[in-house]
Amino acid sequence: MAKDFTTREDNYSQWYNDLVIKADLAENSAVRGCMVIKPYGYAIWEKMQQVLDKMFKDTGHVNAYFPLFIPKSFFSKEASHVEGFAKECAVVTHYRLKNDSEGKGVIVDPEAKLEEELIVRPTSETIIWDTYRNWIQSYRDLPLLINQWANVVRWEMRTRLFLRTAEFLWQEGHTAHATAEEAMEEAKRMLGVYTEFAEKYLALPVLQGVKSPNERFAGAIETFCIEAMMQDGKALQAGTSHFLGQNFAKAFDVQFLNKENKLDYVWATSWGVSTRLMGALIMTHSDDNGLVLPPKLAPYQVVIVPIYKKAEQLEQISIKAKEIKHNLEKLGLSVKYDDRDNFTPGWKFNEYEFKGFPVRLAIGPRDLENGTVEVARRDTLTKEIMSMEGLEEKVADLLEQIQGNLFDRALRFREANTRKVNSWEEFKEEIEKGGFLLAHWDGTPETEEKIKEETKATIRLIPLNPEPEPGKCVYTGKPSPHRVVFARSY
Amino acid sequence: MAKDFTTREDNYSQWYNDLVIKADLAENSAVRGCMVIKPYGYAIWEKMQQVLDKMFKDTGHVNAYFPLFIPKSFFSKEASHVEGFAKECAVVTHYRLKNDSEGKGVIVDPEAKLEEELIVRPTSETIIWDTYRNWIQSYRDLPLLINQWANVVRWEMRTRLFLRTAEFLWQEGHTAHATAEEAMEEAKRMLGVYTEFAEKYLALPVLQGVKSPNERFAGAIETFCIEAMMQDGKALQAGTSHFLGQNFAKAFDVQFLNKENKLDYVWATSWGVSTRLMGALIMTHSDDNGLVLPPKLAPYQVVIVPIYKKAEQLEQISIKAKEIKHNLEKLGLSVKYDDRDNFTPGWKFNEYEFKGFPVRLAIGPRDLENGTVEVARRDTLTKEIMSMEGLEEKVADLLEQIQGNLFDRALRFREANTRKVNSWEEFKEEIEKGGFLLAHWDGTPETEEKIKEETKATIRLIPLNPEPEPGKCVYTGKPSPHRVVFARSY
Repeated sequence: MAKDFTTREDNYSQWYNDLVIKADLAENSAVRGCMVIKPYGYAIWEKMQQVLDKMFKDTGHVNAYFPLFIPKSFFSKEASHVEGFAKECAVVTHYRLKNDSEGKGVIVDPEAKLEEELIVRPTSETIIWDTYRNWIQSYRDLPLLINQWANVVRWEMRTRLFLRTAEFLWQEGHTAHATAEEAMEEAKRMLGVYTEFAEKYLALPVLQGVKSPNERFAGAIETFCIEAMMQDGKALQAGTSHFLGQNFAKAFDVQFLNKENKLDYVWATSWGVSTRLMGALIMTHSDDNGLVLPPKLAPYQVVIVPIYKKAEQLEQISIKAKEIKHNLEKLGLSVKYDDRDNFTPGWKFNEYEFKGFPVRLAIGPRDLENGTVEVARRDTLTKEIMSMEGLEEKVADLLEQIQGNLFDRALRFREANTRKVNSWEEFKEEIEKGGFLLAHWDGTPETEEKIKEETKATIRLIPLNPEPEPGKCVYTGKPSPHRVVFARSY
Repeated sequence: MAKDFTTREDNYSQWYNDLVIKADLAENSAVRGCMVIKPYGYAIWEKMQQVLDKMFKDTGHVNAYFPLFIPKSFFSKEASHVEGFAKECAVVTHYRLKNDSEGKGVIVDPEAKLEEELIVRPTSETIIWDTYRNWIQSYRDLPLLINQWANVVRWEMRTRLFLRTAEFLWQEGHTAHATAEEAMEEAKRMLGVYTEFAEKYLALPVLQGVKSPNERFAGAIETFCIEAMMQDGKALQAGTSHFLGQNFAKAFDVQFLNKENKLDYVWATSWGVSTRLMGALIMTHSDDNGLVLPPKLAPYQVVIVPIYKKAEQLEQISIKAKEIKHNLEKLGLSVKYDDRDNFTPGWKFNEYEFKGFPVRLAIGPRDLENGTVEVARRDTLTKEIMSMEGLEEKVADLLEQIQGNLFDRALRFREANTRKVNSWEEFKEEIEKGGFLLAHWDGTPETEEKIKEETKATIRLIPLNPEPEPGKCVYTGKPSPHRVVFARSY
């Protein structure tokens, strides 16, 4: 275990922060609220990008790139959007520096003031819909299925590495459709893509649902989301997909001739996931020994460590190790062979355990004699001696098992921490224990707001296809058609 | 040919701009100087990124991500860097907007003024070296071989799509080394990577060299570059790699314990190419019929167009076309089959010609009978009838030929437009004809400056291993050890 590494029980929040830093994933930068994503962390993000990008393309989307800056006035065009986004943001007011005449370095040149301030994009609906106006004339130009990989900035006051940073990386899909039905179908399709990605790759079980009006994206008619449970019982929103109706088309005057040759406003969706997923990944699977990575997103899935005393031993082990590496790579696995001589095997074991390498193979002189390898799995911290016979297939199988086990473990945890509550007393008591509470709600923003004030819990989602179960709101006692999911959240 | 498409002879600059817009590569945005990269243009950029990213990784580099914003004071730390970069840049001064009390939309909240202004990165040496200080303690931490894919902003007054925009996309490598030799080797290695990329993928013949002090990167000891010649005879800098010495290490106090256990400053390089390469690609190969793309970077290498009158004909052609598509894809080629019924074959031919698809296959009912296909190549605008027998291999060969032909054509053009000049009169006369002039120069910045003032030509590069040829400076008559390359440039 790394020195000075806090346990989850001791201080969950500190544990997370220490883990991100000590596993070389990210660190705070000299600019308040902005992080540096270090190579190991970035390699995981790159794997996420590759998988998602392929899923987007397989569902008919193409990538494009829109400007970083948005004229201030654009934010005023969609009434609810401005409330949600134009407030805490980075504002560019000048375009030149000059040497200080008093020799104090460089100063902002007051002569170089922009006529209209530019906002560093917090999200790109406005600039994109302003552009779409010229791209869409007729139903033949639709649908427009575009995604952008970009950095965005939201001036958060309290930041945490990956989970909430002033600048973060994300993808944002922005699609345009001829009918409300098609747009709604697209919003749901992308929720499906996010769900599949979260469950199959991140090994992150998620609930699908819609947000209550209070939690809806600023400018959306309906916000679909996936929510996951972290190990401290708090919820984390892992992705959102919005049905925007004709709001942005109206705000930016994007009309098209429909099949009946009549002018109509275009229907829109937008959807995004961000480097926040790195936070979800870390918090869901990792333990007091460090990072735990699902094999499908681990930069290296297997590490091989030689155990030796003499140079000749290393030489012989290396021949075998390289052969195993080569064979594993032929199966499409990524493998690191660490034969560095200035670190002990013990140091390496700790290092790779802390960095979450899913499988570690150790080979010593005795193993060579016996035709065996020591195989350690990171998820369970167990070891076993395996024959070199058919080793590669066994390791590939083991990685599949680990991927499945991480998902199952997280699912069991979520199920064990999801409870029905039926009274306000019970609600207040249970929310202190963390987890998801399934409770009745009267459907009003006022009630949701009051529950939040008293307990810090919000409605994480209204299930997509809720089981009908008439009941009474835990707070007001008014009638409710089905339960919704409450939790404290990141 | 697209309507209203200017020829190169008529107006080269207009031809370029029209081409970029009409081929759906990019367009100007609502934000002055910032472009929108449209899906077709972005698909080409993505191909460039994939190839380069692999080349960087194959040479031992890893990716990371550093903040978009840089504190203003950082720019004052490296004396020559501030002169070169901190002037024309986007300055963030505030972090909040608020509703105007007079109901005029949103205004900048004067209370939310930053203590220190933030600069939107024009390049990242300063923030990265400020970060490296904590990453490097000993020679064991070196070399550090990191690349970043990012957007950067330089407040250009005169902008042109891809060639010079306020915001552009690029990659910037920033490496740290224990010795000057290693850093110099790295700078040269990356120049080699850029050269290979330009020549093998962009089909862009380039000259390798070093910049004169006037044209050096702000903060570099030596700037290596590759320069290409556009069809109007102007030079375009296609990539640079800088040996930064210990300048940034000293400015940001990055010291390490060397093998002799003594503190020393770290040696640095940086290197980058940008979306400007899109401009080079377009201007080198395209013609009065539109875009011409080298097969290795074309989003689609082959398009298949069916020629038919009746639905049954289309049905039969489609069976064959899909079979050909499938077989071409098995060879690793990307193929589009356009069976849209609302566009005529003639319209499609124009469209794909204008968008630079390298090879077009047309299949009609007669072709089915005869077992033939019409094969058109974009580079030469020639057509031939080929037997379907072994078609896929022939198409794959043809694509190789096209790739080679584009390179050869561009090389012949450059050679035909590169001339030795030996007197000032000759220089002034020849520079008006465009192209590269090989001339003697006395090695002083003053002379270079005067030549630039009088002719708008600059020294594009001093050849890497110049042929010794003592002579006299064309401008001053002072002695010169070898010729350098002069040109007007983008």
